Amino acid sequence: MRPMDWLDSVKWDAQGLVPVIAQEASSGDVLMFAWMNREALARTAEAGRAVYFSRSRGRLWHKGEESGHVQTVHEIRLDCDNDVVLLKVTQQGHEPGIACHTGRHSCFFQRLENGRWQPVEPVLKDPESIYR
Amino acid sequence: MRPMDWLDSVKWDAQGLVPVIAQEASSGDVLMFAWMNREALARTAEAGRAVYFSRSRGRLWHKGEESGHVQTVHEIRLDCDNDVVLLKVTQQGHEPGIACHTGRHSCFFQRLENGRWQPVEPVLKDPESIYR
Repeated sequence: MRPMDWLDSVKWDAQGLVPVIAQEASSGDVLMFAWMNREALARTAEAGRAVYFSRSRGRLWHKGEESGHVQTVHEIRLDCDNDVVLLKVTQQGHEPGIACHTGRHSCFFQRLENGRWQPVEPVLKDPESIYR
Repeated sequence: MRPMDWLDSVKWDAQGLVPVIAQEASSGDVLMFAWMNREALARTAEAGRAVYFSRSRGRLWHKGEESGHVQTVHEIRLDCDNDVVLLKVTQQGHEPGIACHTGRHSCFFQRLENGRWQPVEPVLKDPESIYR
């Protein structure tokens, strides 16, 4: 069995990508959603740090490369259809962790309330001071 | 402001879909990942029960329509880019909840261990007895 057979088990989509959910290991909070290509997933597993594929920039995106907010990866999981990845991570660089580019803990900070999306989580750090 | 403006805020992809993460409200466990179109999200918000869009069947999929394992929806969240939805749900129909068609609690039951995907969660109920 070749060492990279586990990467062949993943069902990559037509663009060679797989959706990825990053969940905080300690709290269970869903922090963010992103995409990986084969190389991103291989590097994530090898380094134990989250590496995504940025669709907008068309290149690997080492989470925290600009912000310093890297994600230590404790577990990599795959779903029943082999086409979605779940990471259990520790969000580094700030306490509590900041996963979102808006300076919030989680990207999922908008909650539907009475027919409107309401921001319900505080900005922990000004994004201007995160992205120097 | 029209009542459905919140649906217009969602950035639907080229297929008119948005990725959706279902998380168990009580435990924080990520149960499954699926897709919604506009109608599915509208119905989910209206009924308080998860309705997805099945890409394979090309139609609305009322979660639990065959299995009885419906999902009560407590919260609907949207991410910073308005293109991913997170549901906080209670998985009904079995205790503990079964979200996966394999009869497991969560769809994310395969963990990467030493270069292999290992199933690490038990089958709670035989799928043959779930899908009559």
